Amino acid sequence: MAEGRRVGILGSGQLGRMLALAGHPLAVRTLFVGEEDAPPAAATARQVALAPDSPALAGALEGEVDVLTYELEHLPVDALRSLEPVAPIRPSVHALAVASDRLAEKQFLTDIGLSTAPFARVDDEDGAEAAVAQVGLPALLKTRREGYDGKGQRVVRTAQEARAAARELAVPCIAEGFVRFRRELSVIAARGLDGEVRVYPLIENVHRDGVLRLSRAPAREVSSELAARAVSLARTVLEALDYVGVLTAELFESEGGDLLVNELAPRVHNSGHWTIEGAETSQFENHLRAILGWPLGSTTTRGESVMVNLLGDVPTTPAMLAIPGAHVHLYDKEPRAGRKLGHLTFVSHADDTARDLRARLEQLPEPLRAEALSCFDATT
Amino acid sequence: MAEGRRVGILGSGQLGRMLALAGHPLAVRTLFVGEEDAPPAAATARQVALAPDSPALAGALEGEVDVLTYELEHLPVDALRSLEPVAPIRPSVHALAVASDRLAEKQFLTDIGLSTAPFARVDDEDGAEAAVAQVGLPALLKTRREGYDGKGQRVVRTAQEARAAARELAVPCIAEGFVRFRRELSVIAARGLDGEVRVYPLIENVHRDGVLRLSRAPAREVSSELAARAVSLARTVLEALDYVGVLTAELFESEGGDLLVNELAPRVHNSGHWTIEGAETSQFENHLRAILGWPLGSTTTRGESVMVNLLGDVPTTPAMLAIPGAHVHLYDKEPRAGRKLGHLTFVSHADDTARDLRARLEQLPEPLRAEALSCFDATT
Repeated sequence: MAEGRRVGILGSGQLGRMLALAGHPLAVRTLFVGEEDAPPAAATARQVALAPDSPALAGALEGEVDVLTYELEHLPVDALRSLEPVAPIRPSVHALAVASDRLAEKQFLTDIGLSTAPFARVDDEDGAEAAVAQVGLPALLKTRREGYDGKGQRVVRTAQEARAAARELAVPCIAEGFVRFRRELSVIAARGLDGEVRVYPLIENVHRDGVLRLSRAPAREVSSELAARAVSLARTVLEALDYVGVLTAELFESEGGDLLVNELAPRVHNSGHWTIEGAETSQFENHLRAILGWPLGSTTTRGESVMVNLLGDVPTTPAMLAIPGAHVHLYDKEPRAGRKLGHLTFVSHADDTARDLRARLEQLPEPLRAEALSCFDATT
Repeated sequence: MAEGRRVGILGSGQLGRMLALAGHPLAVRTLFVGEEDAPPAAATARQVALAPDSPALAGALEGEVDVLTYELEHLPVDALRSLEPVAPIRPSVHALAVASDRLAEKQFLTDIGLSTAPFARVDDEDGAEAAVAQVGLPALLKTRREGYDGKGQRVVRTAQEARAAARELAVPCIAEGFVRFRRELSVIAARGLDGEVRVYPLIENVHRDGVLRLSRAPAREVSSELAARAVSLARTVLEALDYVGVLTAELFESEGGDLLVNELAPRVHNSGHWTIEGAETSQFENHLRAILGWPLGSTTTRGESVMVNLLGDVPTTPAMLAIPGAHVHLYDKEPRAGRKLGHLTFVSHADDTARDLRARLEQLPEPLRAEALSCFDATT
């Protein structure tokens, strides 16, 4: 094939799986890198069964891919750099290095003039005590690397607890001051190889126990000013990183309407899964378009969407498909308590979309129904 | 996995490919049967490299699939029957037997009270002369089996030409009288295992040289009476065949507004590709839902769609993706003159959808642009 369209993906989870599925209609050939046996992506494309830091990886990918990307940010930066001679890596290794270290990320955000929670570096117990004195108590102690879905963090209420948390976590951390926020939002944007930027509308997210449960898009009660601020924020980050691909910024909206960046994800994101049915172009397709140097697609929504994660315990497929307009996405993973096994999306065009979407959630089997309604009712 | 969701598909062309892609989000595991090396479906699922009539096939599929289906109707009926002990075949072998023989099909349609072009059986040269005397001249001589995309048929203007055509075709044929029609339509419908029926709105189709070039959905200028007649027609066929899965009826609309059935396809259909983006549930997902015994999805449209086939000569991917709202579908086939290599879909929500869709087609690169506009302008 004349046009380069062979994409290597480091990681083989559900994000990679959905990237591969978005690629097939464009004849994009995906090759996953992952050691796991029968990972979520396995049924959708070919796999190289090597770890991302395997010395054999560069040789295995040589001549097999036109571009490399990643679906998770917890990757060894040096190993990734050693793959740069094989094919362009998009987003860049630099973007990953920034986004995979909470301290580097917060410093970067501060440097480009964006707001974050107060933060301070923690390298040891003494440092922890000094840090919480700086950011205030209560505070959060978070590992600088590898934490996700609420893992690798502790709430601390006293200097003593801060010391203990640093001892337990036993790796470089940061301390974060608590932020009073009105709600959690995210903004997902794509930047092409030519610098073109497309931004999806703000999304409202509900987490429980640190794990995303439900997203609504577009978020409600978004003034044109707030919307413009989100676009500008996304553009600032993308341009500062000379970024290529889809990027997600998890945000807090303060009571006063300010946007604070909680975290950057240099990739497609769980809070953007609704784009498969709810937007003209999905986040997965736009990521592929961007990294292949193709024009980006429209981020216009097709209505109002709600996305519900399926964690641990999934209703039967027919029970979900029986609900009008249910779009079922299963990741082909072995069930395990709390594990993300799939998601459901509903898109509404009704006059009263909020009421319509809630009515669909009411048809879910228990216990998912109660959980989803409680999260939905917690949104704006 | 507790719920049966392993689907064997006889055939491995683009229809199978799109079925597999619709299946992945539902964790449906597809297994193709086809001898071709690197067929369109290959990158999307596993393949059993055997012919549908291979004596080894039943053994290869045993224990591997929960249900069998087919993506083409030119299959040996007896070979298919020998697979019935392996897994339920949906749609049934009977449905395939009817739809894959033009004579059986037309007799079936007549028997259930539906209109077709006048037809008569042709087994030899004398029969050809008698048949055209019955159906009128000019007429079409068509092979009873295996013809598609205008292949295996001859226009005959005299009894002498009819004899010559029967000699050339040298297989059982039928003669069909010419029908004066206003336009070509199709109706696509799904019937579930429990008898539930869902019908997509009427589609208008433009053929050139016997090959579908462009479809618009919903077809314009469809009175509620005509729409109801299409639904009733689809339901009549599905119920008479005790059908499970998606079925397509290619139709002629007469000047007087009658619907004549030109042909049945016991499968998803090229004229339904727009449903991927243009309907709540695609024809591919609904076929899988039906044959797996799951509830059917909504056939409501998301706007007005136009689908353009990419034949032989495909513009570059970036050139197509640069058109706002272009949904590109490539089948990963080697280019060959006239070969169906992919399709494009546009969905419009504009106030003037016709004008909006035409404006998108105007942005296609030549020669596709001229071809698509000419077909679009030929629609109602």
